[in-house]
Amino acid sequence: MYILITYDVSTESEAGKKRLRKVAQVCKDFGQRVQKSVFECSVNEAQFEQLKHRLLQCIDEKSDSLRIYRLREPPKKYIQEYGVNLTIDFDAPLVL
Amino acid sequence: MYILITYDVSTESEAGKKRLRKVAQVCKDFGQRVQKSVFECSVNEAQFEQLKHRLLQCIDEKSDSLRIYRLREPPKKYIQEYGVNLTIDFDAPLVL
Repeated sequence: MYILITYDVSTESEAGKKRLRKVAQVCKDFGQRVQKSVFECSVNEAQFEQLKHRLLQCIDEKSDSLRIYRLREPPKKYIQEYGVNLTIDFDAPLVL
Repeated sequence: MYILITYDVSTESEAGKKRLRKVAQVCKDFGQRVQKSVFECSVNEAQFEQLKHRLLQCIDEKSDSLRIYRLREPPKKYIQEYGVNLTIDFDAPLVL
């Protein structure tokens, strides 16, 4: 399944900055960053549960916000991107 | 249709801060903020085109990033939210 993760982590404290780094690291383990606090991941059910579990261990639910969207597929059909684009198209042919 | 808008606007310059405010204002005209740079909007095709047109007029495509996702519906079935929650449930009964 294709999912989108968006998060707001309060960085007023050092602890918040640490949480922000940890959340980003967990997301990197499962997908690709498309914006500062937005990641897209292609995962199966087991990976999805593991990702969610690890993210919930990172955030402080009293001050941070985490949203997980299960996206329509194929993603390219339902995503429009404008401006600076961080994404790598894994399906595109690799030019060596 | 239900859409998600995520954006990264570079705020290093005053012009960037101004663009950020404008992008947020346009999004507010069409939907609700769910995180700092994330909005959810329920729009028809005409509103969608108008929203996109106004957003593209706001951003600087050389430095900002704008992503528009057409979400699965009903949204509640495909969105999981944890922590601080800004959203208002428009379908919930209004308690007076």
